[in-house]
Amino acid sequence: MNQFTSVHDVTDISALLKRMAQYKAQPLRDQHIGLGKRMGLLFLNPSLRTRLSTEIAARQLGMEVIVFNAQQDGWALEFGDGVVMNGSTVEHVKDAAPVLGQYLDILGVRSFPGLMDREADYAERIIQAFIQYSGIPVVSLESATRHPLQSLTDLFTIQEQTSQLFRKPKVVLSWAPHIKPIPHCVANSFAEWMIASGEVDLVIAHPEPYALHPSFTQGATITYRQEEALLDADVVYVKNWSTFEPYGKVMPGFDDWMLTPEKLALTQQAGVMHCLPVRRNVELPDAVLDGPHSWVTRQAANRVWAAQAVLSEILQRYSTAVLSTPQINAQ
Amino acid sequence: MNQFTSVHDVTDISALLKRMAQYKAQPLRDQHIGLGKRMGLLFLNPSLRTRLSTEIAARQLGMEVIVFNAQQDGWALEFGDGVVMNGSTVEHVKDAAPVLGQYLDILGVRSFPGLMDREADYAERIIQAFIQYSGIPVVSLESATRHPLQSLTDLFTIQEQTSQLFRKPKVVLSWAPHIKPIPHCVANSFAEWMIASGEVDLVIAHPEPYALHPSFTQGATITYRQEEALLDADVVYVKNWSTFEPYGKVMPGFDDWMLTPEKLALTQQAGVMHCLPVRRNVELPDAVLDGPHSWVTRQAANRVWAAQAVLSEILQRYSTAVLSTPQINAQ
Amino acid sequence: MNQFTSVHDVTDISALLKRMAQYKAQPLRDQHIGLGKRMGLLFLNPSLRTRLSTEIAARQLGMEVIVFNAQQDGWALEFGDGVVMNGSTVEHVKDAAPVLGQYLDILGVRSFPGLMDREADYAERIIQAFIQYSGIPVVSLESATRHPLQSLTDLFTIQEQTSQLFRKPKVVLSWAPHIKPIPHCVANSFAEWMIASGEVDLVIAHPEPYALHPSFTQGATITYRQEEALLDADVVYVKNWSTFEPYGKVMPGFDDWMLTPEKLALTQQAGVMHCLPVRRNVELPDAVLDGPHSWVTRQAANRVWAAQAVLSEILQRYSTAVLSTPQINAQ
Repeated sequence: MNQFTSVHDVTDISALLKRMAQYKAQPLRDQHIGLGKRMGLLFLNPSLRTRLSTEIAARQLGMEVIVFNAQQDGWALEFGDGVVMNGSTVEHVKDAAPVLGQYLDILGVRSFPGLMDREADYAERIIQAFIQYSGIPVVSLESATRHPLQSLTDLFTIQEQTSQLFRKPKVVLSWAPHIKPIPHCVANSFAEWMIASGEVDLVIAHPEPYALHPSFTQGATITYRQEEALLDADVVYVKNWSTFEPYGKVMPGFDDWMLTPEKLALTQQAGVMHCLPVRRNVELPDAVLDGPHSWVTRQAANRVWAAQAVLSEILQRYSTAVLSTPQINAQ
Repeated sequence: MNQFTSVHDVTDISALLKRMAQYKAQPLRDQHIGLGKRMGLLFLNPSLRTRLSTEIAARQLGMEVIVFNAQQDGWALEFGDGVVMNGSTVEHVKDAAPVLGQYLDILGVRSFPGLMDREADYAERIIQAFIQYSGIPVVSLESATRHPLQSLTDLFTIQEQTSQLFRKPKVVLSWAPHIKPIPHCVANSFAEWMIASGEVDLVIAHPEPYALHPSFTQGATITYRQEEALLDADVVYVKNWSTFEPYGKVMPGFDDWMLTPEKLALTQQAGVMHCLPVRRNVELPDAVLDGPHSWVTRQAANRVWAAQAVLSEILQRYSTAVLSTPQINAQ
Repeated sequence: MNQFTSVHDVTDISALLKRMAQYKAQPLRDQHIGLGKRMGLLFLNPSLRTRLSTEIAARQLGMEVIVFNAQQDGWALEFGDGVVMNGSTVEHVKDAAPVLGQYLDILGVRSFPGLMDREADYAERIIQAFIQYSGIPVVSLESATRHPLQSLTDLFTIQEQTSQLFRKPKVVLSWAPHIKPIPHCVANSFAEWMIASGEVDLVIAHPEPYALHPSFTQGATITYRQEEALLDADVVYVKNWSTFEPYGKVMPGFDDWMLTPEKLALTQQAGVMHCLPVRRNVELPDAVLDGPHSWVTRQAANRVWAAQAVLSEILQRYSTAVLSTPQINAQ
């Protein structure tokens, strides 16, 4: 694996899941494979779980980690081609990324979508620019349209928690209310990983105006009737997202989509997942989050193993592809 | 010790002070007892000395340290029960703390009081929420009403600097002027540690409107006459705090409480302490801070040994109470 | 070397350059000489390359590194003597620096000039205050009037890239347009290092109002005619700076000083340098930055070796001057 930005970068999902299980059983089993390698975590947007879990994962493989919070460090990057930079941006990604590529061995990048210009967001130009110009493996820590470390974690958690079923689990991705326009990343990414895995029956339930783009959901059952979707579900993944068409809006009138205990009772004692942070009593009620069916904490804990498995794969390919001595590339 | 939030969490103050002395003599004597353990330092408010000294202490015990500055990382936490989170807070401590508990082995938390709602502040609900929901040992890096790592340092410094006296040192906690409402933490905590130690005669001198709550000062002599208090003092601890009743106010008219060289001359060549940061020529004049009686730098340096002794105690209990293998808890 | 703030702190420039080459060849050759030592990187202003390269360099020598971003951590320092601190500054450098000196073994400081008060900026009172009050070796990470780690890097890069010339390279420091008033540091520092090295013929080309102070440029040829300067140049170092007299201004009318491909064609296939960040199509056009003559990425990569050579020299002197045991100084 030379980059990790979506499920399409993975050749063998099962192998990656198996590696996660191995790290969960023995976190330090590969504690030397990253020795002398440096990972940079570049946050163009804030992070809690992703930052901590990725930092922990990288260190457990022996890597050094440098965290760089770009906004706080006053670093307004330019991504446009041919721009005359006489405005507020101070450095072009074409100049910054190659330098990061000289200092680091792997680069993690988080960048949220602006939710103003759909074409720009869906072109993923920020993470693609880092891939193009840094010259080193890039790991998405959530990009404009996807959150693959989260989705890999989610798939692992579902398999782990439903391992005693004698059939494919029925998994419902259930849209939830929110007060602000939220990116599509987690929902897009969850859908494409579930479908690509072939291991679950995926139903996506959302109000009519909230359709996701079909390139992510092809293969799932899509419905506007939440309660019907929940019937016999084994897992309910609760998540808000804003509209795709028109882009990035909140449509009024769907506050009753919050997953109440009554709705949860329609399921097969389903486990409830959410990627966190969650707005209590807006997206999910206290009664569900504090109840016995919530998996949210164990789901978040599994983030470490997802990051560790991905970094481990990259380090393996990396070590066979380039000089393994820990040094900055001479030019 | 399973948590460190006040002197009441300590069973043997002398043993803790002795451990500090051992670490000061040999900083790396226990450099392996924290191997494979991770400490998170969560700052809901800014910090210099506490951050550096705690990070150094943890590393000297072999631990990994992850610093998380919550405000900069755009993380507005909710602490209220049953709140409908349709406002500015984005995550509830009930969801965040358990995840931190999965990623970390010890959690340090700094949270200042709002100084608007006395009951809320004195209920210490922020640090208590992290204790309740994280499931791991929590160390106060200063909370709404106390700053125990500072007070432990202060007690150590006083003993170290007055070890040649053949009597209990007379220690005066002397209120100082300031331009802003300042929390009570350092003063409360200093008073309760001095009293609990039984090793000093504590006099608290403050203007009449600035009484601290008696639960912290019971056992001290309290006076409104600063100069009388200073007579024969061996140590003067200078600190501002705002009023308790009404809560969190600055009362005009007490600028002459700054400890001048003339006032200091009333003492027994007393050492002058301050937890820093200090506003020069408001709280303390240049002549005192730059003079031979100032202990403020050596006091700050001792912060490392306080943190190291506390973390060492927690690691010891921890290692006997839970699995000692360095891993994230499987669920 | 006990401090590194300018070329005047260096007794043997050649030896320092040679050490850089050794580290570039073998980054970990001295990976133990800093064991048990702690470096603090204090940023009063933002940084990307300097932070990363210095952190990497220090770690490659075995040191621990603690990064402290002062503005984000809400730390408004006072530098004035005798000030009554009843305003916005919360701590005096006289109190903060000695504490840093207790916690750390080497202190790196970045502080930009205000560009309002020339005398204050050129007195370098911020970095001088840290030198005076911290009691430990201080390394400039860019100060009000100089950026010595950058200039050492630049000298190394020029020697490395022109090693096949059979004459002194002709190096042109060419002023470039910008939209904001920019400090003089990089230009001042570049000039004094080039001249002190004796290894290049330095020409400084700038519009008439942009003269640098002669104390930095004595020994260089200075001209207001850019194209004449570029004739036969082997290296062009492109950099904006604001005026010295009046202080810190942008004078209109010199946008045509951008180094176009046509101007570059006047040189001897000169390499183009810039310390980054660069405003594309204002300071330098895409065609030059993306062309074969740009050295900017390899220049930035060399920052690591400059920092590593300087820290290595300081550690060497340090280890013979003070107790080598890794401990906080007892007082």
